[in-house]
Amino acid sequence: MINLNMEEKDKTMENIVSLAKRRGFIFQGSEIYGGLAGTWDLGPLGVALNNNLKKLWWEMFVESREDMYGVDAAILMNAKVWESSGHVATFTDPLTECDKCKRRFRADQVEGDKCPECGKGKLSPARQFNLMLKTSMGAIEDSSSVSYLRPETAQGMFVNFKNVMDSLHPKLPFGLAQIGKAFRNEITPRDFLFRVREFEQMEVEYFVRPETWEKHFEEWRKIMWAWIEAIGLEKSKVSELEVPDEDRAHYSKRTIDFEFEYPFGKKELYGLAYRTDHDLKSHMNGSGVDLTYFDEETKERFLPHVIEPSLGVGRSLLAVLLSAYKEDEMGAEKRVYLKLPAKIAPVKVAVFPLLKNKPDLVNKAREVHKMLKIEIPSVMFDDNGNIGKRYRRQDEIGTPFCVTIDFDTLTDDTVTLRDRDFGKQERVKISQLVALLKKSL
Amino acid sequence: MINLNMEEKDKTMENIVSLAKRRGFIFQGSEIYGGLAGTWDLGPLGVALNNNLKKLWWEMFVESREDMYGVDAAILMNAKVWESSGHVATFTDPLTECDKCKRRFRADQVEGDKCPECGKGKLSPARQFNLMLKTSMGAIEDSSSVSYLRPETAQGMFVNFKNVMDSLHPKLPFGLAQIGKAFRNEITPRDFLFRVREFEQMEVEYFVRPETWEKHFEEWRKIMWAWIEAIGLEKSKVSELEVPDEDRAHYSKRTIDFEFEYPFGKKELYGLAYRTDHDLKSHMNGSGVDLTYFDEETKERFLPHVIEPSLGVGRSLLAVLLSAYKEDEMGAEKRVYLKLPAKIAPVKVAVFPLLKNKPDLVNKAREVHKMLKIEIPSVMFDDNGNIGKRYRRQDEIGTPFCVTIDFDTLTDDTVTLRDRDFGKQERVKISQLVALLKKSL
Repeated sequence: MINLNMEEKDKTMENIVSLAKRRGFIFQGSEIYGGLAGTWDLGPLGVALNNNLKKLWWEMFVESREDMYGVDAAILMNAKVWESSGHVATFTDPLTECDKCKRRFRADQVEGDKCPECGKGKLSPARQFNLMLKTSMGAIEDSSSVSYLRPETAQGMFVNFKNVMDSLHPKLPFGLAQIGKAFRNEITPRDFLFRVREFEQMEVEYFVRPETWEKHFEEWRKIMWAWIEAIGLEKSKVSELEVPDEDRAHYSKRTIDFEFEYPFGKKELYGLAYRTDHDLKSHMNGSGVDLTYFDEETKERFLPHVIEPSLGVGRSLLAVLLSAYKEDEMGAEKRVYLKLPAKIAPVKVAVFPLLKNKPDLVNKAREVHKMLKIEIPSVMFDDNGNIGKRYRRQDEIGTPFCVTIDFDTLTDDTVTLRDRDFGKQERVKISQLVALLKKSL
Repeated sequence: MINLNMEEKDKTMENIVSLAKRRGFIFQGSEIYGGLAGTWDLGPLGVALNNNLKKLWWEMFVESREDMYGVDAAILMNAKVWESSGHVATFTDPLTECDKCKRRFRADQVEGDKCPECGKGKLSPARQFNLMLKTSMGAIEDSSSVSYLRPETAQGMFVNFKNVMDSLHPKLPFGLAQIGKAFRNEITPRDFLFRVREFEQMEVEYFVRPETWEKHFEEWRKIMWAWIEAIGLEKSKVSELEVPDEDRAHYSKRTIDFEFEYPFGKKELYGLAYRTDHDLKSHMNGSGVDLTYFDEETKERFLPHVIEPSLGVGRSLLAVLLSAYKEDEMGAEKRVYLKLPAKIAPVKVAVFPLLKNKPDLVNKAREVHKMLKIEIPSVMFDDNGNIGKRYRRQDEIGTPFCVTIDFDTLTDDTVTLRDRDFGKQERVKISQLVALLKKSL
């Protein structure tokens, strides 16, 4: 039984990875050169899905609110940022090194003292290796020119706290938000988009009066569940893990991990942490710049405390694909489809002429396509292969609606509107099409 | 005269940099730690303006067309990519190094053989230094683990040419498009956003049949001018430079630089290049993977040729700010405003209650703000300071319209609508406000 289950789980991941490549969502990074471990490239459909996710997040977490301020900090920051934040000293994994082949392994993932890779060398005692990717910039190549690729976007917001305060004078509670890339030198990247070396984060640092943290923590917890629902994750696969004292960062008084049941196990999807005033305090000490907040009403001066909802774009994408992937039977044939919420589907509507060699049908289909595209940007024209093939292709990329122009269209100005989830087809007047689609989308 | 002009020009840059910081557009990277040369962080207004620019580019260059396909490749690529592309061998600047302080200088920018920095050392003969930022990733730290931060987004598209072909089967001519960060170890970053170490690119690689390149080159040239107009650049400051044979990359048969008259000189803004089949050929040779295209109609197999429109987000932002920055007099007072096209303005409409201590006015203003926000996402509520101060602030961030709720509003449901460019004020019925604003925006 255990073996069978394992096989089933592997099969699920295999299906997702294969569909993602076949349909132009996600490719292995640098694939024609044999790849680069821990990196993935987005194809045309992946870019669209990813952009829709980021846009929705920005709408829900930033634009729809009056207390949120966007920032976009550089990936390369002054190395002192990472000294103050503690990353230089403690952002490490315990690794052991083979004295023959020099390969490194996570100390908690190897057993014995022989190298599991070359089989010849002996493994060293575990040492701490930093997970930050290092580079050197500027006119001299020495320690003064060391810089790191940021391992998280969060510090870019703490470092800009004062700049936002000075330019926009927000009042507590308020938050900074950022979407951007981050990098970690994971020793064993694995599980598709789950553990990678280059990834994208969507993070909020929400600044509050210390005595109100619990209230705001609960507010953000609800917003995260609303997000999980909005992107169509299977709710039964998401659960909260109250991170116990001994596993929490020393400065955090409460952390909830939102876990997802991936085929390879129940693992972290998102995090929500109460970080106290740890970050601002560290940067105030490290930089010597005053980062306190002055409350004009109470005349108090203090360091705000922070609630941090932290989300990964890639993990969202993976969980979305795993939740949306469905197999069923339609017309006695097996089919695969992505049950994506319309809001994030890369293509909203596909328009087909029934036959591609009939100019009347093609012209009419072009006309309908053009009309729809004015109102709905992600409308696709498709005349490749027969109609069955086209439905199958659109199902696999999660297109909610297909519109087919046939011979009846030429006489009565109606089209066939087919929905993705049930394959239900109905005749609709072209004049009503835009309104109907806009309502359903 | 020359001195006076120089001073005026410096003043223009100073004004832009100062406004950008004061109003929350652009901050020095890692500022509280003394900065990091060649990096800049975007504040809330800068993020909004930047996102609007990128969204507009994506609409004009990708979404509105049927022949364009987005990709988003990883910043870290297999090092072989940069060997094949020629960057490892030739993406260099001639530098000279001081034998005492070890600082490096662009050989074409120093005179004599004494170090201009420490004054003690002697300068070495010029050597070629690579501009790519290097890092090391993976389990072993040796030459096999070297990776580079991409110095351009272009190669991410060539490397994914086959993946897009195999998954979406586009027919020539078609293009790949990408927006993303790139990095160069500029020895002397300078001129605000102009010469930096971390920047964002918007690039298209457009694949064509070799014999049609001139036609497509002209098409993209027109689109670039349409873009320049859409983002409101002063057209008299933009000019084309036909790059002469001896300055062009060896593989390019034609390159046009779009130059902008910055206060610090006429320099490159964008580029448009015909790159022949150089890139696909190099990657086909380097990877051993067949990158040819098969034309089903003519039954020919060949390497497509490439037209590349290449745009920088940061340089766009800088040219937009320089073009939009205006000083005039209004009500006998000097004022500064940003004459941004409504499409890219970070805030479209600001709503004010005339007085902030009158609950009736504030509630009514909140109501109007809420109503507008449903239809126009970037609407701001502002009750900070007196009305004159608020107008000045909105002018400086380029908000096209301000709506003021006063005592008359409470009796006749009209508001004052003020436009940014002329300060013209008119009374408008609240019921007509949305339609009027949507039309003007």
